[in-house]
Order: sequence, then structure tokens, then C-alpha cells
Amino acid sequence: VTDANVAPLWLAQAQATCQAQGWVSNSVILPAGETAKTTDCLHAILAKADEFNLTRNDALIALGGGVVGDTVGLAAALYYRGCGFVQVPSTLLAMVDSSVGGKVAINGARVKNSIGAFYHPHAVLMDTDLLATLPRREWLAGMAEVAKYALIEHAALGGQPALALPLADPVLPLWPWLLQHASALQQPPSSTNPLLTPERLKALLLTCCALKAAVVMRDPDETGGQLDATGRIALNLGHTFGHAYEQTLGYGTLLHGEAVALGLRLAVATSLHLGLLADEEATTVQAGLTALGLGLAWPSLQEAPAETLVVAMSRDKKVRQGKVRLVLPSSPLGNLVIKDNVPSELLVTLFEAQGA
Amino acid sequence: VTDANVAPLWLAQAQATCQAQGWVSNSVILPAGETAKTTDCLHAILAKADEFNLTRNDALIALGGGVVGDTVGLAAALYYRGCGFVQVPSTLLAMVDSSVGGKVAINGARVKNSIGAFYHPHAVLMDTDLLATLPRREWLAGMAEVAKYALIEHAALGGQPALALPLADPVLPLWPWLLQHASALQQPPSSTNPLLTPERLKALLLTCCALKAAVVMRDPDETGGQLDATGRIALNLGHTFGHAYEQTLGYGTLLHGEAVALGLRLAVATSLHLGLLADEEATTVQAGLTALGLGLAWPSLQEAPAETLVVAMSRDKKVRQGKVRLVLPSSPLGNLVIKDNVPSELLVTLFEAQGA
Repeated sequence: VTDANVAPLWLAQAQATCQAQGWVSNSVILPAGETAKTTDCLHAILAKADEFNLTRNDALIALGGGVVGDTVGLAAALYYRGCGFVQVPSTLLAMVDSSVGGKVAINGARVKNSIGAFYHPHAVLMDTDLLATLPRREWLAGMAEVAKYALIEHAALGGQPALALPLADPVLPLWPWLLQHASALQQPPSSTNPLLTPERLKALLLTCCALKAAVVMRDPDETGGQLDATGRIALNLGHTFGHAYEQTLGYGTLLHGEAVALGLRLAVATSLHLGLLADEEATTVQAGLTALGLGLAWPSLQEAPAETLVVAMSRDKKVRQGKVRLVLPSSPLGNLVIKDNVPSELLVTLFEAQGA
Repeated sequence: VTDANVAPLWLAQAQATCQAQGWVSNSVILPAGETAKTTDCLHAILAKADEFNLTRNDALIALGGGVVGDTVGLAAALYYRGCGFVQVPSTLLAMVDSSVGGKVAINGARVKNSIGAFYHPHAVLMDTDLLATLPRREWLAGMAEVAKYALIEHAALGGQPALALPLADPVLPLWPWLLQHASALQQPPSSTNPLLTPERLKALLLTCCALKAAVVMRDPDETGGQLDATGRIALNLGHTFGHAYEQTLGYGTLLHGEAVALGLRLAVATSLHLGLLADEEATTVQAGLTALGLGLAWPSLQEAPAETLVVAMSRDKKVRQGKVRLVLPSSPLGNLVIKDNVPSELLVTLFEAQGA
């Protein structure tokens, strides 16, 4: 199962690979973009699986970005109460984030990802060649999640200071490594980008997946985050703000990673206002995000009024007992705290100031 | 969440009970019957949950029979990747079977229960008073599943000969107890039915649930049945035949339990033809089912042609590598075997002979 963007680039080769293994394959092509995360697309996949006479012992393969992986993964979770599921991520975002961790979902009428399951892929096949056809906009959207890992690294490692991450040359934590190479990281891998050799790209992907896996293994079903910021809620840094933009502007206007980039800047701004980060730390992060190409233009307040955004936040899945639950950066960088009581008035002010 | 049959009988009382606990409740009423197991009803529940601003910490309560429990359970499994779920079964079938074991599903376009999940209720509340409003037809449909438990008892207990089941007075295995009281068991509990006192009814329900739980705990996700008949596939006795009738006649023409009753008789007939049961054993079971009020009229061969039924069986979820997998009674009664290679010609003959 792939989408209309990826199908012309990679579907034939993927099916040829299956055929070379002696596997019979059929294909389903979803529309491109967030509109594929609807009940219609979910049930179209399930109906095709029925039509192809798939059993629970067959597999659905998601060839695409996070949207394809999320919808196909939910179909696989449901088909005969769980059939085979393989992720072949085609975007940086899907490689470092959505293909790992077992969260699959489509969007509800009002809340993003509100219809879903925990269903881990039986395999994730990452082929870095697929990144060569990735538009720069999609690459940068993935870099927003990479930047998030850098900003949660200490929390993700559960306070362990020195997991030997594979991103060597020299061995650095992720955030200073990103800052050091920020300019080169603004472009997708290509023959003219000497930084992103296949080996270094592999190391970057594995670093991000290792950080995500460390969190997910501590809290596979997202119950631990109710209590502290070492649970799965850590992965949500920037996402509650980001989801509010996605929902208010209409799913698909911003790429998910673009919304996360805006959300990271708002999370840092919130921490600064609450005294969780020092001025200098907040400034360093905002400048670093800009250097990484994540200094995106803010949606206008006409398109996304601050009050509407705050209402959207209050509908996020992380809401508990009517309070917006935010995970926020705290000093020193790489640490997180959970806040249940951020006043709506402050959130309105921050949306209006647009991270300034 | 309830259906149009149960709502006028019990919804107001159920909501009053919630209110007395200080719980805020809303209601959703599904259409009665198997048509509630559709994607439309599933997504109507999810949309209402969104509209009522439910979070993952709220609960969906299924007040009804197996259809309501299956659809609401799947909605609860999916809503925010799993919200609270309480079963309040209103039918005998739901009490002894579908409310226990964690299987929830809706029907796919061609295969019953092909869109589903494993999601155990956080609580099952059985109020035997609800059985007083149960039509006799629904009662007998539930008795078909009770008879199934009797016919798998030895296999369900994993070869343990003497689990102390709660059905005392005197302590008997379930099948001889059913035969002994067959006439009284044809009627739902009422003041004119001296057999089914609340205590004896509770013992009967607990016996069935204990047998189901013994199987489910050995094989929670239905992988063990690939190998032997002590796995979850044991619970499927009669169901592959029954599903074929439900699908061929259109879901809802027969009650699920009625289809299972036909399926049990065909399973026994198959075992007799294959030499798995002796003549006398097969005759005893067929006569016992009739005595229990389960000697239903067979659908005509015009409505349900034998070849169509066999094709429907080959689409059942239990199919593996293109073969129909049947679980069948074997001698002595209470034991089971799995057969992968029952010839289609024999199945056609048996459907045409209608269990004779």
C-alpha cells in the first residue's frame, strides 16, 4: 500500500523485489497527504485485503511516509484482528519516528490520531536510497523530529548520561552535532552533500530510533507518561502545539513535521515564560532551529486565531481531567517536565506572539 | 451504547444507576441486529465519543447482546488507542460467550468479524434480571453456545479431568446436566421455571465463563490453535459451518446462536462420516440438541445452496494456506480434533443432507 506520490517513484521496484522473493503481491494506491488518514481510506484498504483473499498470515506492506504507515498499520492491526505488517518508510520523518514505536492511527472528526491502536510492525525496512527522491520540504519536516530527539535526549535516556549512540565522528550528543552541521543538514542527501554519506545517514537514523526505542520500551502503551516525563509523553514535545495548528488550518495544510517545528518553538517559549529554561538556553534553541532550516513562517492569526488554537489544544489526546497536559523543555537542555496547569491566557499570548 | 431493542427496556435504568454513582453519561442507540456490526455504526460511536469530548480515561459501556458488545468493544479499542470498556450483557449468548475473552469485531464486506481487535473489557457486569425480558428465540440462541461448551468441556479443560465447576446439585459435567434438565432449559428464567433460580443461573453462567476463560488464558491471541485443539480454536466448534449460513443468508437472517446450533449438528455429522465419533455418540448429541430446543428448521437449499455454503467456509478466518480448518468433536464426547483436509465434496454432501 502506497500513495500517489510514492507509487510512480518506487512501487514497481518494490513489487519486483517481492516477485524476486517468490511473493505474490497486489497494490493499493492511496491519495497523497493527510487525507489518507480517513475512515474511507482505512476501509478501502480492508476491502481490498478482503478482495485479494488475504488471510491473517499475509502481510500489509506500507511503502510511504508517516501517513501511509499510520493508515496501513491500523488496517493491519484490524484485519482478522492483526495480520502481518511491514513498514518501508520513504521519508526521513517516517524513518526516525512514525515507523517505529507501534502507534498507528487515523484522524477522528475533530481530533488527530484519535482512532488508533498499538501495533508494532513485524519488520521495518529502511532503504536510504528512497531519501534521494524526497523533496526538500519533506526532508526539513523530518529534521523537525530529529531536532526533537536532540531536545529530549537526556530525558529519553532516562537520566543515563552516556548511552553510546552510533552518531560518532566525534561522539557527541545529538543537539551539538546538529548545530555543528546545521547548514549541510538543510539539504536532503545527494552526491553534492558530503556530510550525509550513507554511513553517516545510517548513524543518524539509528541514533533517533535508539532514542525513541529507549522511551517506548519503558512505556509501550503510554501509561507511564501520566506520572513523569521519562514516559512516552516525552516523544510528544512540541506536538500538542503542533496538532493545534494542523487541526485549525485543516489537516494537510502543514506537513506534520512543519507543525512540530512550530510547536517546538512554542514549547521553548512556554518554558522561558515559566522559568523552566534560562534566556540563553531558549535563545540557543530558537537560533539552532532556524539554522537547521526550521525557522518557518508562522500561519497568520487570521488563518489560525490564538483562541481557536487553545481550544484545539484542549481537545488533544493528552488532556486529562479537562486540563491541557504539556511536556516542556527544562534546564539543562535535554530534560523535560510535565505541566498540567499552564494557563490558557498564557497560551493565547504565546500563540499571538508566535514564539517571539 | 445500546440498541433499539434494549434501549426501551433498560437504558433509563442504566443511566439512572450511573447518575446515582455521580457519573455523567450520554447515550448512543444503534439499530437492532447484526446490521450494527458495520463500519457506519462503528464510526457513529467514535464520532459521538468525540462529540461528547470523551478522553481515554472515560469508558464506553456496551449494554446489549453480542452485536452491541462487539461493535462497542472495537470502538473502545480504537478510541484514543484504547479507552475504558465495560460490558453489560443483556442476552444469554453475550453473558456466556461474547462479553468474555476480548474478541471484538465488526463484519467486513465478505467475511464476518474480519475487522477487529483483542480488547478485554475492564469489567463485565452480569445482571441476571436482564434475562427476564429476553425473547425465547434469543434464549435458545444462547443455549446453542452453552451446548457448545458442554461438547468441548474436556478439550477446554486441557485434558484435566475434574476441574471443580460451580454447576453443582449434583456435580456433573455440563453435557449430562443439560440433558437431564433439557425440557426446563428450553424456557428463559421466570417465576414459572423452577430450575433456573438466580443461584442456578449464576452457576450455569460461571461454568460457561470458566470453560471459556480456561481456553482463552492458554491462547489469548489465537495462535495456539494453529497446532492443536486445546487452543482458542476449540471455542469455534460449529462456527465455521454457522458463519457460512450467516453469510450466505445475509447477516441477521439467523441469530448467531441459531447458526451455531446448525453448525454443531453439521460438525457432529462430519465427525461421524470421518469416523471421529461412533454412531451412538453422534445420535446422542443430535437428540440432545433437539431436546434442548435446538432442532431448528434448516434453511432451504434454494436460499442456501450447498456449493455457496462451502465457498463461504473457504473464506472463513480459520483458513490457512487455502485449506478450510475445522475443529470437530471426537470420541469420547468432550474432545476435539483439528482437520485441515476435509474434502469439499463431503461438505457439499453434508450441507445437502442437512445434518441427517
